[in-house]
Amino acid sequence: MPNPTNVNLIQRDAAVIWHPFTQHQIEPLSIPITHGEGVNLYDADGKKYIDAISSWWVNIHGHSHPYLAKKIYEQALKLEQVIFAGFTHEPAIQLAERLLSHLPENFQKVFFSDNGSTAVEVGIKMALQFFHNQGITQRRKIIAFEDAYHGDTFGAMSLGAPSAFNAPFQDMLFEVEFLPSPSDPEACITAMQDKMQEADNYAAFIFEPLIQGAGGMKMYSPATLDKLISIAHEHNILCIADEIMTGFGRTGKWFAMDYLVHKPDIACFSKGLTGGMLAMGITTCSNELFDTFLSDDRKKMLFHSHSFTANPMTCAAALASLDLMEAPENWENIARVQKSHESWINHLQNHPIIKNLRVQGTIVACELEDGQDNGYMHSIRDDAYQYFIKKGILMRPLGNTLYILAPYCITNDELKSIYAEIENFANGLID
Amino acid sequence: MPNPTNVNLIQRDAAVIWHPFTQHQIEPLSIPITHGEGVNLYDADGKKYIDAISSWWVNIHGHSHPYLAKKIYEQALKLEQVIFAGFTHEPAIQLAERLLSHLPENFQKVFFSDNGSTAVEVGIKMALQFFHNQGITQRRKIIAFEDAYHGDTFGAMSLGAPSAFNAPFQDMLFEVEFLPSPSDPEACITAMQDKMQEADNYAAFIFEPLIQGAGGMKMYSPATLDKLISIAHEHNILCIADEIMTGFGRTGKWFAMDYLVHKPDIACFSKGLTGGMLAMGITTCSNELFDTFLSDDRKKMLFHSHSFTANPMTCAAALASLDLMEAPENWENIARVQKSHESWINHLQNHPIIKNLRVQGTIVACELEDGQDNGYMHSIRDDAYQYFIKKGILMRPLGNTLYILAPYCITNDELKSIYAEIENFANGLID
Repeated sequence: MPNPTNVNLIQRDAAVIWHPFTQHQIEPLSIPITHGEGVNLYDADGKKYIDAISSWWVNIHGHSHPYLAKKIYEQALKLEQVIFAGFTHEPAIQLAERLLSHLPENFQKVFFSDNGSTAVEVGIKMALQFFHNQGITQRRKIIAFEDAYHGDTFGAMSLGAPSAFNAPFQDMLFEVEFLPSPSDPEACITAMQDKMQEADNYAAFIFEPLIQGAGGMKMYSPATLDKLISIAHEHNILCIADEIMTGFGRTGKWFAMDYLVHKPDIACFSKGLTGGMLAMGITTCSNELFDTFLSDDRKKMLFHSHSFTANPMTCAAALASLDLMEAPENWENIARVQKSHESWINHLQNHPIIKNLRVQGTIVACELEDGQDNGYMHSIRDDAYQYFIKKGILMRPLGNTLYILAPYCITNDELKSIYAEIENFANGLID
Repeated sequence: MPNPTNVNLIQRDAAVIWHPFTQHQIEPLSIPITHGEGVNLYDADGKKYIDAISSWWVNIHGHSHPYLAKKIYEQALKLEQVIFAGFTHEPAIQLAERLLSHLPENFQKVFFSDNGSTAVEVGIKMALQFFHNQGITQRRKIIAFEDAYHGDTFGAMSLGAPSAFNAPFQDMLFEVEFLPSPSDPEACITAMQDKMQEADNYAAFIFEPLIQGAGGMKMYSPATLDKLISIAHEHNILCIADEIMTGFGRTGKWFAMDYLVHKPDIACFSKGLTGGMLAMGITTCSNELFDTFLSDDRKKMLFHSHSFTANPMTCAAALASLDLMEAPENWENIARVQKSHESWINHLQNHPIIKNLRVQGTIVACELEDGQDNGYMHSIRDDAYQYFIKKGILMRPLGNTLYILAPYCITNDELKSIYAEIENFANGLID
């Protein structure tokens, strides 16, 4: 029987809170979580949920990690916040240095903001103003992928192909040119080559490297992306990697761009950056790009700021997360999770409904194919979500696409229990 | 003599960090802060700076407050983060309830995001989609003030009048209609009335209530704003209060809108919301507005989300800040600071250079008039900034506008020392 505290919290929540990406009329009431530990979340009834999606892809080391909590607390007692224009602090400096040490050597400067959307908006602003500051006025357009998702602020929304997500705002968004999804490499590369007939109109090409996340965990090869980047670079178009989901070990290496020969010019981070503890965004670029903003003319600076830019406590969280990221145990976990996923999908090669099985590092994804068209609004989504919740597993299908994107500390047994429930749910659709 | 640690940090910072709103070629290198306590910040040389601008208007209770730090730590150990779609938690629920209890009763629902820019973008999206969801297709335009500042993402930039700030991006911004600054009430009200000839084209009117912050701490009367809101409401235009700087006691009451008879429909908060500890934004509205997003059609929901929406630790910071805000001592401080400002400006009524002295709650502002035009690019700005830094006071003049916007715990003696240095600097300009 539900605990009265739980019921009470559910009702209080419904009275005052408007949840993100939620159609409150048809979606079930929110589940109140009281505490977390490792890969698990617990509700007020004591029910346990395996967090199979790292709470929107952020939590890489497990919940309420005592080491991260302690480091944040120590920083809070010392310096919680200071304006980051004209002032600086050790946690921000150290975070920039350590992050850069794990990135390709063309990344040399770090700009802080508060989340993934802002990290992307900063990246776009850097690219546009890079040309503007040099008096190159015609390079104004951006190239992105169909099915791309880069965030929900107006600039970030503009970079997503027109969809239900941004329909109410479509006329307020700036124009972007879209390439077909890179999961069809030939069509995508041909379209890119075609656009190069007017190459001088383009400032930047932005992409989620190797995996289009919200678009349906669509995976594509480093070779395809290398080809696209090399075409862009031949025409002096800046390449922006949105590593918000893919960064910090998620794809099996530190960053998805580590699989590439041709490196991007600008990269955007968030989510795993702080180990999933606190909101932060980072946009990074070369000294060459940074130098085009240097001038005796103040108007050439990057006019972008948020009050909490490089908040010291959030930097402390990111530094503590890097401590854990750098430990050999972390990389053993990442390799172990990948191996577990690979052996599961091998076992499922001929399943009648579970299709398109694919793995990239710690992410495994598939479609449940029951004859309907694939897509975010697929009717199977709500049933699947509820099925897994009932079984104590937090999954969040993207239409008929199921995926696991768990904290790296998830055990093989916990993974097996999730695989088993995916198979159970799928087999239930056949009966 | 500078401490080697300080010099080392300065150099390390310059090598890797791109600071916000900073022209790195001409601005001095960043000062490394090691710790904070109360109203003071300390650099690695042990030099003390009075934080006279609450580190970009966020820090309302003083630095590294142990009570806030402890509350965040306790939450970190319990539940640091959980996806906020489908799930909820006590700190978010309690924060929404307590915030609403301090707001006019037409505010009934709370939507969380990560900073002021996103809180504003959510407000604009709510207003546009409110009409879109009802099939009212022609209400697409927004009205804002000249000299407005609402943030740096593309939507928020669009709401700022064209300026050096957004020139490199002007062609990518959506069209907004601007009213003359409300510091000229008659011109502003007349312009608003004129626009009402095409009232059905407008979705929303957005404003910083009572004080235009970054535009130069321009103060205007509640009567002017009441008139503008009443005109908008007569024509069914939604009114959006950007309370990001003005909220949480800054203007002498809980919120600037508390001085108004006509209440806004949507309000945006950030900065003081968490006591200046961590980045968070909130957008709040009525149940009536929220209800237009309820439907069996998923496409009518608000498609907006950030990964760390309603982060539990950040909610814990905001709750702890509300504890301090609600204490009688806090309101005694706010009244005391206001009284101190008022008695200082009375004493300066006939100063030859310090002009336009004005107070609103805990904010005092003035212009240094040396014959040049006023404005953000005024040449006195850099000299003034450096003068105060040398004297151990963190001020950040907006052109030739000086202002004090300190944590509420600042003592009368500390205020007097700032007033004295403002007078010293101004008198130096006369000699």
